[in-house]
Amino acid sequence: MIRTLFPDDIHNMSMKELDLLTYEIREFLLESISKTGGHLATNLGIVELTVALHKVFESPRDKIVWDVGHQCYVHKLLTGRAQQFGTLRQLGGISGFPRRDESPHDCFNTGHASTSISLAAGIAAARDLKGDDYHVVAVIGDGAMTGGMAYEGLNNLGASKSKVIIVLNDNEMSISASTGGLSQHLSKLRMSRAYIDLKKQVKTRLTSLPGVGKGLSSGIGHIKDSLRYAIVDGAFFGELGFKYFGPVDGHNVAELTQILSLAKEVDQSVVIHAVTQKGRGYRNAENNPGKFHQIGPFDITTGAPLAVSAPTFSDVFGEKMVKLAKEDEGIVAISAAMTEGTGLAKFKEAFPDRIFDVGIAEEHAVTFAAGLASSGLKPVVAVYSTFLQRAYDQIMSDVCMQKMPVVFAMDRAGNVGTDGETHHGIFDLSYLSHMPGLVVMAPKDGIELEDMMEYAIKLGKPCVIRYPKGEAGGCPGSGSAIATGKSELLATGHDVEIWAIGNMVKTAAQALPAIRERGFSAGLVNARFLKPLDEKGLAESIGRAKTIVTIEDNIVTGGFGASVSEFIRSNGSSGTRLLKLGWQEQFLEHGDVEELFIKYKLDAASVAERICGFIEGEA
Amino acid sequence: MIRTLFPDDIHNMSMKELDLLTYEIREFLLESISKTGGHLATNLGIVELTVALHKVFESPRDKIVWDVGHQCYVHKLLTGRAQQFGTLRQLGGISGFPRRDESPHDCFNTGHASTSISLAAGIAAARDLKGDDYHVVAVIGDGAMTGGMAYEGLNNLGASKSKVIIVLNDNEMSISASTGGLSQHLSKLRMSRAYIDLKKQVKTRLTSLPGVGKGLSSGIGHIKDSLRYAIVDGAFFGELGFKYFGPVDGHNVAELTQILSLAKEVDQSVVIHAVTQKGRGYRNAENNPGKFHQIGPFDITTGAPLAVSAPTFSDVFGEKMVKLAKEDEGIVAISAAMTEGTGLAKFKEAFPDRIFDVGIAEEHAVTFAAGLASSGLKPVVAVYSTFLQRAYDQIMSDVCMQKMPVVFAMDRAGNVGTDGETHHGIFDLSYLSHMPGLVVMAPKDGIELEDMMEYAIKLGKPCVIRYPKGEAGGCPGSGSAIATGKSELLATGHDVEIWAIGNMVKTAAQALPAIRERGFSAGLVNARFLKPLDEKGLAESIGRAKTIVTIEDNIVTGGFGASVSEFIRSNGSSGTRLLKLGWQEQFLEHGDVEELFIKYKLDAASVAERICGFIEGEA
Repeated sequence: MIRTLFPDDIHNMSMKELDLLTYEIREFLLESISKTGGHLATNLGIVELTVALHKVFESPRDKIVWDVGHQCYVHKLLTGRAQQFGTLRQLGGISGFPRRDESPHDCFNTGHASTSISLAAGIAAARDLKGDDYHVVAVIGDGAMTGGMAYEGLNNLGASKSKVIIVLNDNEMSISASTGGLSQHLSKLRMSRAYIDLKKQVKTRLTSLPGVGKGLSSGIGHIKDSLRYAIVDGAFFGELGFKYFGPVDGHNVAELTQILSLAKEVDQSVVIHAVTQKGRGYRNAENNPGKFHQIGPFDITTGAPLAVSAPTFSDVFGEKMVKLAKEDEGIVAISAAMTEGTGLAKFKEAFPDRIFDVGIAEEHAVTFAAGLASSGLKPVVAVYSTFLQRAYDQIMSDVCMQKMPVVFAMDRAGNVGTDGETHHGIFDLSYLSHMPGLVVMAPKDGIELEDMMEYAIKLGKPCVIRYPKGEAGGCPGSGSAIATGKSELLATGHDVEIWAIGNMVKTAAQALPAIRERGFSAGLVNARFLKPLDEKGLAESIGRAKTIVTIEDNIVTGGFGASVSEFIRSNGSSGTRLLKLGWQEQFLEHGDVEELFIKYKLDAASVAERICGFIEGEA
Repeated sequence: MIRTLFPDDIHNMSMKELDLLTYEIREFLLESISKTGGHLATNLGIVELTVALHKVFESPRDKIVWDVGHQCYVHKLLTGRAQQFGTLRQLGGISGFPRRDESPHDCFNTGHASTSISLAAGIAAARDLKGDDYHVVAVIGDGAMTGGMAYEGLNNLGASKSKVIIVLNDNEMSISASTGGLSQHLSKLRMSRAYIDLKKQVKTRLTSLPGVGKGLSSGIGHIKDSLRYAIVDGAFFGELGFKYFGPVDGHNVAELTQILSLAKEVDQSVVIHAVTQKGRGYRNAENNPGKFHQIGPFDITTGAPLAVSAPTFSDVFGEKMVKLAKEDEGIVAISAAMTEGTGLAKFKEAFPDRIFDVGIAEEHAVTFAAGLASSGLKPVVAVYSTFLQRAYDQIMSDVCMQKMPVVFAMDRAGNVGTDGETHHGIFDLSYLSHMPGLVVMAPKDGIELEDMMEYAIKLGKPCVIRYPKGEAGGCPGSGSAIATGKSELLATGHDVEIWAIGNMVKTAAQALPAIRERGFSAGLVNARFLKPLDEKGLAESIGRAKTIVTIEDNIVTGGFGASVSEFIRSNGSSGTRLLKLGWQEQFLEHGDVEELFIKYKLDAASVAERICGFIEGEA
């Protein structure tokens, strides 16, 4: 166990003590995350950098914004939260992301990538308008730097008078390896020189120049433009208006401390390029940082997960993509830095020329796919539900408006568990439900996912298939073919028919026996389609049953239940009662997937209970 | 009148003829747009560039993607559409944007900024996979280059093997003047050299180097990296993986033709930096390109609009912002390249330090505002409804999730008329309606807009005020104070009560007399709030009237009517009939605002007719 530490403790430590501390932290992280699961590799890579940041800056007076957020574990350890680490990402425990309500040292809740520069720019602008003088630091990975928002932030910050210190944590990875021109630029920078004691070099060069005095700390800010290239090569950042310092060894606390101190003195915004290694210090993670990016409990010696899971929806998707692509040359895959997470690793192996990993760039991913589709290909964009929120406009304007046959394989839809509120995919049925001409489906299990993929590829229209995190195990069904806007009737009932969509079909099926035991005649329909809704099937259900229940792994506002509700009202079925089950319109905290379903009464037992209660209340 | 021209005609013209043609085109554009209205200044600036593109490339075999799209007028003239120009932007006439259904020369419909590089990258990737060999060109302004998507496109394209020719049309403007670090970079490039005959320069430099042969066309692609900086200064683009050619005089057809021909020969993606002048050749537009960016019919001699409009919602918003900011130091304004369009010009004059024009960067705008709010300021983000679609995720994750008191002044909500389907703001009530904790309002007129602004600033919560394009003239009302989730009852009725939101209150008020003349007792409620919905007021309405009608300038799916519908159903008001008026769930074409309302039966007369028909049908 590590002792409780605060930034003041760090300020008072010697370099030697800090070096020792990094060993302690690494050991603790490994011990602790091997039990709780979490984002291991990134945090192992950022130990020295975080220690140096808290050595040089004074949090919470100085503001440190953590891009993506999952790289904040060491920061949490150094800001008084060591004793709570056993509860990491658990229901009621500390979050795996920064949270303002958890500590004053967390100045903004982050979760989606590429926001830190914009946030830091806003905080710095407010500081300057108010006449305050604290430092604002954005810590951003090279992966997040592939997102357009990061560039928008750079572009604005570089031209503004407000100073922000950007620490570019370059580990050559987002979750998959980083891609793109900027990544190649960074790679060139890394190779262009050995890691250096930059302060010494700057000092030497500066003091050897006429007109530059010995007062380094004040002089450094006024280096002439013409000199910049002599010192550093970071033309990309330089041209956008930044001083570029680096590359610096991101695992050397002393060097990091020096360069961060130097950055404090410069009178304009700075980019510090720190090179780190994802998974640092733990051989298994160093060798396979992707696997240890986010992991459940594991055996430290072997690195093997303690629980082996059955095939997930992502696995099924990935396998099927390979099969489909073998039969159809037109199929191409697009991933936004999630080739492995979305199950496309095998596709990449089989068809390296037909997969495009565009980095953390969902906007580009979607419009690029529209471009591919406009030229006759059949693009499949595999992306997590929560991240596709970034491309709302592109789905609307570049895909739906032009009826481009792009297939969205929307993974991690619904409750994703331990990542918590920034990552749950509980809004997609709502934000997709009003897009003209879009077909939106959700499979009840892996087999149906395969069927829907076959259907979607042949459809020739904009189309979304949404499916959850986790196992794709079989669910009872008729096996009937997928047809546009056609549901699958699994059982009829006189008292109630449940219309379930996606993974909730299984939950509803599990709830049926308990409902029937209470003496109710209960049926079940697998909706399959949010859009177009099976109005004929629904009308038949209404004809058979007094009560209709909808259930979805999405908020109840504007989603599947809302569509059913609208149909019932607009068809004047005033005798029909409707119960809509799903997440309430609020953000959902972190916790195990199952625990969250239970807490919010969306597990099979609770669903049965709520349905019976509703019917009895009506009776 | 200009004659009908096709690319083949351009191919056969001499340079002298092409130069003459540019004069003809300019004269025609001025004549024609002075009558129809449209995007004048941009198109005057791109005459030579478009002529040169069609001289060098073979459309439609070669693909030219027009970013933002409104710069496509000259392209339309050169691809057979001259005779239709009198119908520009009119109902049933040709669009002011590229449209695939209008011509095979329009390879993608564009409207929102910064998509062209992603689209071109997609088209080029498809070309290469299929083994085709046409050219793909993206024409993008420096304004659109401030959008993050453009960078995502550059980052991916720069590292890919697919070749795209990017023509950067640099007029130093988006709609307002361009901002940001990249803009300063471009400015430095422009000043770094006189415009040059680049081909000659390249030739000279290349042939004077050992090992570089005389075969320029094949040699140019293989210039060593080390040489690149000797030829050009475009480090920003160079570092991302592009050959940079420029700057070139964007009004010299011969030079442009040379450089475009050169770009065809290079074996990697190229950025051609063409410097143009917005409004070129028409003094009034040269002097005030912002005013002539998009303009209604005007007098050519004076440049004065033919119709002078009463104060618009944007005007009212702008004036009120100045007043509020005088009283409250915490108020700051954010605009995404729309300082003038959103009415913030006076605010900028009065408080230059308290306004942030971030360029065409809605994602950054929203998250930057969240950063400002987290530090205690009161940011007001003024943005058009359709463009805020770009920031769906940021509103959700960075504003709503953290309850940041950001006020969104959402202009151009609803039917915007002549810009057409990419610009109508008819989805916002739907995409905002499910965001947890967000307050969403719409004022019936300018006076109510002012009241809502006062209310929103004091609210201390995430808040949207949406209002339409056009005049903010008074609408009958009680003048009651704005209170959270409270509607304004204007008149009660026994047969029907109309719940109207925003600008549709006026329409509904105009419809009332005709409804009453048909013998119905009709009331009217100004809803004011989409969220939270006035459930108490609605329950009272339901108690009074047999029929409820909702009317909104938004699609009927997932918006205001859907919320009312859900309330009525969930409250078991089974005797109440509901008629939901609004736009059907489909994309809406271009045409005058009023014409569109009439065509889709949302004008006052049609609304009266539809309501009476509904009641009579029920009776």
